[in-house]
Amino acid sequence: MSKQLKYLLPEDKLPTHWYNLAADLPSPLDPPLHPGTGAPIGPDELSAIFPMPIIEQEMSTEREIEIPEPVRDILRLWRPSPLFRARRLEKALGTPAKIFYKYEGVSPTGSHKPNSAVAQAYYNAISGTKRITTETGAGQWGSSLAFACAQFGLECKVFMVRCSFEQKPYRAALMETFDATVVPSPSSETEAGRAILAEDPDSTGSLGMAIAEAVEQAAQRDDTCYALGSVLNHVLLHQTIIGLEAIEQMEMAGAEPDVIVGCTGGGSNWGGLVFPYLGRKLRGGRDVRLVAVEPAACPTLTKGKFAYDYGDTAKLTPLVKMHTLGSRFVPPGIHAGGLRYHGMAPMVSKVLELGLCEARNVQQLECFSSAITFAKAEGIVPAPETTHAVAGAIQEALRCKEEGKEETILFNLSGHGHFDMQAYINYFGDKLVDYDYTESEIAMALSGLPSV
Amino acid sequence: MSKQLKYLLPEDKLPTHWYNLAADLPSPLDPPLHPGTGAPIGPDELSAIFPMPIIEQEMSTEREIEIPEPVRDILRLWRPSPLFRARRLEKALGTPAKIFYKYEGVSPTGSHKPNSAVAQAYYNAISGTKRITTETGAGQWGSSLAFACAQFGLECKVFMVRCSFEQKPYRAALMETFDATVVPSPSSETEAGRAILAEDPDSTGSLGMAIAEAVEQAAQRDDTCYALGSVLNHVLLHQTIIGLEAIEQMEMAGAEPDVIVGCTGGGSNWGGLVFPYLGRKLRGGRDVRLVAVEPAACPTLTKGKFAYDYGDTAKLTPLVKMHTLGSRFVPPGIHAGGLRYHGMAPMVSKVLELGLCEARNVQQLECFSSAITFAKAEGIVPAPETTHAVAGAIQEALRCKEEGKEETILFNLSGHGHFDMQAYINYFGDKLVDYDYTESEIAMALSGLPSV
Repeated sequence: MSKQLKYLLPEDKLPTHWYNLAADLPSPLDPPLHPGTGAPIGPDELSAIFPMPIIEQEMSTEREIEIPEPVRDILRLWRPSPLFRARRLEKALGTPAKIFYKYEGVSPTGSHKPNSAVAQAYYNAISGTKRITTETGAGQWGSSLAFACAQFGLECKVFMVRCSFEQKPYRAALMETFDATVVPSPSSETEAGRAILAEDPDSTGSLGMAIAEAVEQAAQRDDTCYALGSVLNHVLLHQTIIGLEAIEQMEMAGAEPDVIVGCTGGGSNWGGLVFPYLGRKLRGGRDVRLVAVEPAACPTLTKGKFAYDYGDTAKLTPLVKMHTLGSRFVPPGIHAGGLRYHGMAPMVSKVLELGLCEARNVQQLECFSSAITFAKAEGIVPAPETTHAVAGAIQEALRCKEEGKEETILFNLSGHGHFDMQAYINYFGDKLVDYDYTESEIAMALSGLPSV
Repeated sequence: MSKQLKYLLPEDKLPTHWYNLAADLPSPLDPPLHPGTGAPIGPDELSAIFPMPIIEQEMSTEREIEIPEPVRDILRLWRPSPLFRARRLEKALGTPAKIFYKYEGVSPTGSHKPNSAVAQAYYNAISGTKRITTETGAGQWGSSLAFACAQFGLECKVFMVRCSFEQKPYRAALMETFDATVVPSPSSETEAGRAILAEDPDSTGSLGMAIAEAVEQAAQRDDTCYALGSVLNHVLLHQTIIGLEAIEQMEMAGAEPDVIVGCTGGGSNWGGLVFPYLGRKLRGGRDVRLVAVEPAACPTLTKGKFAYDYGDTAKLTPLVKMHTLGSRFVPPGIHAGGLRYHGMAPMVSKVLELGLCEARNVQQLECFSSAITFAKAEGIVPAPETTHAVAGAIQEALRCKEEGKEETILFNLSGHGHFDMQAYINYFGDKLVDYDYTESEIAMALSGLPSV
């Protein structure tokens, strides 16, 4: 028998609690501020768009929060997700490094997103919500929330960034299979959408715009709440199930990561894998390098500013302190639609500010080239977002080769690219280009930040 | 903890041998005949297009055939595949039946096809083949062989049935990711293709035509062999790994199937799950009903004739005794492209002739409706081919409900539909229709059978 490739946890090892990094951060997170008054915002003001259990989680500093049994019961359809040792990739690269990846593509919709979607749908269902609105970029979050809503009998309405909607008819079909309604954003259904279309009828949309539309509709109806697929504390909390499982699986493999790599758009898959390891380190445990990889076309962590900003273009959401390129920043229509967000999770931003992680940006041509190397070796075609994690992990593996180091690399293979093959078609057809920003372009984008 | 949903085997339980049904059949299979002379064909004559180890397996009556270690080493990337208890589907149907499904969609290309592709690529590689040609209908087989060839450094050329090629650009992109060359069939690259195009320049193609093109090119070059994704004995042999794993997993679940259901096009996923159970029964073990489900639009088992026929339209392949609608039969362009084959595996045909299984056909509207019920409950969107197995399993579950029987149903969820969402889009858009054949249409198709 050759050496083991997969480390599988049985269902009864599914974590019973999420891990909350807020309990271990050396200094507290900055509070969200009211978009009108600039004053710290309380639970009551958030209740217009979120159910109370979600708001409590958003503000909690408890270290462990129990995963409700009905949520675990659905997560068990695909979780615990597998951890792989990428032996064939190691061989293809000729690296002395050991490469492991946690594979979240085994979920119903092919990424980590259902981990939070199921929890959010559950808390909404027990709080009396009948209908959830949301936005989606790549379509991963929208289809995940559609699946989750179908489990609890909730209506689901998804504002899908227009350029993704047009690139990915299969994603919309997947959402419809789960009974969701999908609308390309900006749309004429909301004030926010109409205002954008009046200015630019050909707008390709952005996550910021789609969030504005979804929040507007949620705020207008009592039976409707809004759900966000990344950025916020409770979403990252739900995703920590990834890292909690990975810690157990790496133990099964008899290995400890020296470096952990993930892609960052809003920060949820990265935080999900990294935070349980970071918490361990903050409580005096083993040190580990944490690397966040973002697209050069949307360099939030590497070129943005750590400042209070709106989460959406219409300035409806609370102001949160995060790395941002400004809420009016519209990144180019790259295929990694899930990473086209002007901001970053406040928790991830804080971790970077505290010097607890590293951030780098990668061009998309390198990402797809790395992804194809990975696919040929391991058989899995990564989602365009996930190619950034693959590129980052391969960079680390090649560094180990150069330095002759046998380090252990762990990365988050956050999703497969089955619904995103147009990106590969365009890559093969030489239709993808790299993006660079001048300092003045970045300065211009940041000049619109609110002065709080 | 709620009741278990998944039954996972560890890697070291991966079967070491395939199971060969030929060893246990009560009467031997009829031999293949030479397409020119009509005389039984020998290994030497097959060696123009197949490597010798494959030919030996094709003719073997040994009960157990060892799986080579390099093949197991690649299969371990995703195998053993999971067995699920469909508790949420049972609840949605309100059936007292227990429903289990073996899920083959976890493979690199999303179906059971790599089980044989890896084995065939391996035997070709050790036999000195440099290049493999093949056909693909839905694209499942073509992408699987492309993946397998990439593992052994072989060139791969795929003739893809034109209507699938046009419906599924993402499938072709997947093959290209694994470095294969994809050509829509009928093409102008071969004599067979040119002859078809001369008669009908708008031909949508068929598996029979694509096989003719692939075989023609393999026969012309010494360094090139041909690989078939279904129908032949060795392909079904490689697929028995599915049933061998399922037997162990059903034991883990403490259950024994009363009925096993699968879809049939060429017969490989059905035979793969069913044959190990059938062998057990033929050797005096437990009885179990075996149900083959095929499309009403291509009713090979239910309306075809058990007779010698060609495998391709150009009459290049040996004559094999099987259920067939005639090699000139071109089924309508249904989305279940992998089931659009005029014939059926000789082994599956023989099993039906011996009264050891049942066959039924299902209309595509029922298939997609069943698939959506399944997807909402279990989270997995089945491939169009696989919807036939789902429909058959749901028919059995509803029969159990009507009869108040607590039977155990096992079916093969042979693949996911991520690359086939156009089928669902057309279903939602009311663009799919059912098909019925009159007796005279079937008689007409069968009238072209060779007189051997």
